[in-house]
Amino acid sequence: MMAQDSVTDTAVFQLGKLGQAVTSRFAEALAPLGLRPRHCGVLEVLTSNPMAQLDLSRFLGVTPSVIVDMLDELQELGAIRRVRDTADRRRQLIELTDEGRALAHHAVLLARRMDTELFGALDPGRAAALRESLSALAATYGVPGVARGHDR
Amino acid sequence: MMAQDSVTDTAVFQLGKLGQAVTSRFAEALAPLGLRPRHCGVLEVLTSNPMAQLDLSRFLGVTPSVIVDMLDELQELGAIRRVRDTADRRRQLIELTDEGRALAHHAVLLARRMDTELFGALDPGRAAALRESLSALAATYGVPGVARGHDR
Repeated sequence: MMAQDSVTDTAVFQLGKLGQAVTSRFAEALAPLGLRPRHCGVLEVLTSNPMAQLDLSRFLGVTPSVIVDMLDELQELGAIRRVRDTADRRRQLIELTDEGRALAHHAVLLARRMDTELFGALDPGRAAALRESLSALAATYGVPGVARGHDR
Repeated sequence: MMAQDSVTDTAVFQLGKLGQAVTSRFAEALAPLGLRPRHCGVLEVLTSNPMAQLDLSRFLGVTPSVIVDMLDELQELGAIRRVRDTADRRRQLIELTDEGRALAHHAVLLARRMDTELFGALDPGRAAALRESLSALAATYGVPGVARGHDR
């Protein structure tokens, strides 16, 4: 088949498939911890400071119902707890537990190990170029670093 | 937050999110045709020649039940028809209709337009490097061009 007749030869298709493949592997690596890729953004945001549920949902750009699901899953794991805001007693904040901090740290190690594998398939110049291209494209496609959760 | 504490700064996470974002856009572009990204691999394979359902499922690396779903959807669109194999009358082959060929062609145009947009965000050297890196990584992660369907 000629390249000009192919969807599967396009970068848009390959990027989609590659993203799926890499995310599945990451999901498999996280599974023994009870975590899913989409939990990582939540843990990461909460590492800096506790946050109200609604602010978390806005910050991560996901619906409040998705945030509730994720927080229930993370609470089940003992990774977060819901506490009263000392500045405003009517307000509830989500805060990371020590277990949550340990899980977040472990997830970072796993993700970095996967990055090493990923870039190991490329020569160093290509790897650096890919890293920059991914950041540029992430910005173009509205995928800021920490600002979005993961769908799975 | 320091980069070394971040999952969302890793390439594995960004690749996953970028793949999702790009695939959603492609899905939106295909929607008016009644097509989904995962249909593209099927249409593409059938462009060369008719194929038995089971061979199609093996070739695309998806389960027979997924193939049946996809073929039902494509038949609904008038893109494929089920015909008797003239060499073996007991066997049924899936063949592209003229409508299916037109849809496949239209999908290629849309995917290529998206590639132009995607690479337009990068300078030409970076774009060429990205194309090569994607192919290299697709091979490493078992994402050959035409050999896998798309999950959505």
